[in-house]
Order: sequence, then structure tokens, then C-alpha cells
Amino acid sequence: MVPTEPHDPIGATWAGGRILSPGETAVRADDHSVVVGDGVFEATGVLDGVPFALTRHLARLARSAAGLGIQTPDDARIREAVAEVIAADRRAGLLRITWSSGPGPLGSGRGDGPGTLVLSTGPGNVWPATERVHLGPWVRNEHGALTGLKTTSYAENAKALAVAHRRGCTEALFRNTAGHLCEGTSTNVFLVVDDVLVTPPLSSGCLAGVTRDLLLELVDVVERDVALDEIEVASEAFLSSATRDVSSIAAVDDHDLPMAPGPVTTAVAAAFADLVARTPDP
Amino acid sequence: MVPTEPHDPIGATWAGGRILSPGETAVRADDHSVVVGDGVFEATGVLDGVPFALTRHLARLARSAAGLGIQTPDDARIREAVAEVIAADRRAGLLRITWSSGPGPLGSGRGDGPGTLVLSTGPGNVWPATERVHLGPWVRNEHGALTGLKTTSYAENAKALAVAHRRGCTEALFRNTAGHLCEGTSTNVFLVVDDVLVTPPLSSGCLAGVTRDLLLELVDVVERDVALDEIEVASEAFLSSATRDVSSIAAVDDHDLPMAPGPVTTAVAAAFADLVARTPDP
Repeated sequence: MVPTEPHDPIGATWAGGRILSPGETAVRADDHSVVVGDGVFEATGVLDGVPFALTRHLARLARSAAGLGIQTPDDARIREAVAEVIAADRRAGLLRITWSSGPGPLGSGRGDGPGTLVLSTGPGNVWPATERVHLGPWVRNEHGALTGLKTTSYAENAKALAVAHRRGCTEALFRNTAGHLCEGTSTNVFLVVDDVLVTPPLSSGCLAGVTRDLLLELVDVVERDVALDEIEVASEAFLSSATRDVSSIAAVDDHDLPMAPGPVTTAVAAAFADLVARTPDP
Repeated sequence: MVPTEPHDPIGATWAGGRILSPGETAVRADDHSVVVGDGVFEATGVLDGVPFALTRHLARLARSAAGLGIQTPDDARIREAVAEVIAADRRAGLLRITWSSGPGPLGSGRGDGPGTLVLSTGPGNVWPATERVHLGPWVRNEHGALTGLKTTSYAENAKALAVAHRRGCTEALFRNTAGHLCEGTSTNVFLVVDDVLVTPPLSSGCLAGVTRDLLLELVDVVERDVALDEIEVASEAFLSSATRDVSSIAAVDDHDLPMAPGPVTTAVAAAFADLVARTPDP
């Protein structure tokens, strides 16, 4: 397995209103996140005790909760918990916020009680200078009940990423039911085709990544359906994510990209780094 | 909400090798079931302290784990835990077994430690004599990484069932990407069309339900693609599941079935009840 996601113990966990002891359990067996993955989440990098783009992440958490049809999480309570969990882990490089529909029956039917909030910190992910990615055989569903929502029902990603790791790759890409390029397991994907920077539209079934959204505001990007074989004619390609920022793709399976990073990737990465330097909460 | 899934407290929980106190937490925040729904599960009815068809359920749990690419659960250990959790809840009507890939990083990448086993019991579900079901707008993906696997990434079902409940229905049905009838959130579906009992094939993306498998062995059923508009010409229809057995469908949204239950449903239900009476572990 490629050692890109260190499995150190998590740094700190906040649950039930307090910081837990290391290894302490946080969630009940009948919490609907455990029972049927009935929750939503956000993850972002933490630099010097400040989580990046927290306002945008909390807005997406609320959108995902609404889309899933569970209670709206309490923004102010989450911000308090964020401060507490980061204070408990001075080395925090990654912040994770999980919000579920709370305890419920042992099936898909939901309970009617309060939701469950759990926060964890961990070390920041370490990515290689350029990434090799695997285009998996599986199809992302752009017409599903969860399309566009960041839910804890992400086993599809865990399975695809494990397969990619076994092939020496750091990310897996999905096609969608139309046969177009969609996204990675925790990334959006960008290609440079005929000197134009392109990325799949939200109608492809991809997530509206916070980094993707920021890039759309920062630089010229065309959102359009991307055919799989455009990977073979792209001059360069990169991934975006909250923990990778802009990350150059060196190869998709056996196909090496001509440039990694190429000039467009380098310019986009510089523009994003400049944004990060200007403000921690754009 | 239709009161078909009582939200009583769960009866007993087994985790970490012991029976927990009521309300005690069972799972760590970094367990991959909580993080990304990276687990598999089984649920079955319990009658007089005996879980029905446990051998078949454990076989499917192992198949789901293999399909997801996580460790194989330990059959003997699970059977011991089943005995302990049922002994702790003499009223148990439902048994739930959850097996995850265990603690891991705060993302889709898996840890390499042991998996997590959690068992719970609860009161048996109470279903109406005949059910009204809702054909939802969402599409089940028969080409996904999780197709045919019973994983804890089931928020699609939780969302669809919540919508069905708000419409006064007890189950939601899915179409697949080909536009065919697929399954319910925790059920397989059967129709009688032109005097023939039919059910969608596994290639539709439906789960190989234990009750479905038993019915295929017990009675004459044709597995074939079922068009959505066949619902309108079916003379009768029913759901099957581990907690419902055979359950007559009275209506799909505004369309009333001509007979509920009709003679085929009644005969199939009787054959299944006879099997249950003969053996608790067919």
C-alpha cells in the first residue's frame, strides 16, 4: 500500500461535548452513522491551529445534511467544538467533522432524536510531488439519491482507493453512467486539453469540492463533460482536494501525462497558494 | 412517519468482547464504519432466542466483506457473540451484526489493523398486514463498486425510506440505471404478471436477499428484468425480507394492486411459513 495516508493514531476526538481519552469509543452502536452511514462530513487541512476555509466547509456540511434530509447541524456549536478539538491537538494537520442523524432503529428507518456530532483531528496527509492515479472499472451514479452529497456512505471510495493503492497509485478515478470522467475518491480532476483547462461539471455526479469551487473563482476553467479518452490527449492533469490543494498527475495507470507538472498546473497551484497565504477562510 | 420501525432503545449491544451498558458508546470515532461506512452487516429476525437462517446470513456477511475487500469476519467468534447478545436480551426480536474494516485514517484510505465487530438486538419490526410502497425518483447503480454488497454505506436507503414514510408508505422501491425495477431499501420485490411470479435478477443491482434466495428454492419464480410499467398490469405483488418474510403490497403510490394479498402471495407466504416452522436455519 502506498504510504500516502499515515495511520497514526488520531490526535484528538471531541464527542458528546468533551475531548475523549485516546482510544475511547465515541459513537453508540445504534447511531445511524454506524448502522447505515446516515451522516455527512467535512475534512479540511489545519495550518497553525486554523482550519482552512471553515465557513465554506460548514456551508457544504449544511447542504449535504439538507440533501440527505437529516437535521441541520448547529454552526455555532460546531465552531466551539472545532476550537476545543484543535486546542487539544497542537500538531493537528487535518480536521474532520462528522454529523449524523443520531441514534435510531437498527435499519434504514431514522430515529427522531437529536443528531450526533463528532470531531477528530489527525496529522496532515503527505502526498507525493506528483501522483499516479488509477481509473477504476466502477461507475459513479450521477442519478442517485446521494449524488453531490458528502455523506459517510463512502465505502465505494474506500474500496476503489484500496484497489488503487495495490496498483501503486494514490487515487482512484471514477467514470459515470454516461461513460464520462467524474471525480476521484476524495478529489476533483482537471485536464488541460487543447490548451484549455477543463473539469467535469456537477451534472457528472462529482462533488462540489471546496478547492474546486475556489479554483473556478480564481482561474479560467471550462466545466464540461470529459470523455475518458481525453486523458490520452491531455497535456497535463491535476487533482484538487481540501488536503492536497492542487496536485499534479504524472500518470493515469499506464499512460504517462506529457508534463507533470506542466505550466497550467504550476500556475494554478501558485494562484491557489497565493489565496491560502492571503486568507485562511476565503 | 409511519410507525413500522419502533424506535425503542436497542435491547443489548455486544462490542469489544462484552455486553455494554444501555446507552454506552461502542465504536471509536476513527472506526472506518463511522468515517466512510466501510463495513458490512446482516440483520435477521430472532424467534424464541434463535436467529433465523444464521448460517446463510453469516455466509453473505463473508461474501460482502470479500466484495468490499475488507478482512473476512471470524464465523466462530460471531456465533459466540450472537449467543451472548441474545442471552442479554430475552425479548430480542431482531439481531444485527456489523463488521467493519476497523480503525483507520480519517479518509477513504484503510487502516491495517483488525476489524471491528458489533452486535445489537432490538424489538422485532411490526409490519402492517399489507403495505403501501413508494417508487422513488432515484436510480440504483447496478454497475457500482458496492453493487450486490450489504454494506453500512446505506444512506441512499435511509433517505429514500424517509421520503416514503412522509408519503405514508412503509417502503421505497428503486429503479436502476436501465430503468428497470430493482429492489426496496431493505426488501426484494416480486410481481405476478400474466399469472407468472417474477422478480428482478441480481444483474438489476438488487441484493441477493436471504429470503429471496429461499423463495427461489421453494417456489416457481422467474428472474427477469421487470419494466416499471409492469407494476400497473401486475395482479399482485409482494416484498420479501429477513424481518418481513413475505409481505403483500396493497399499493405502489397511487396505483392499487388488484389483489392484496392475492392467491400467489398467500401460497408463497404459506410455503415460507412452513419452512420457518420446519427449521430455524435452512
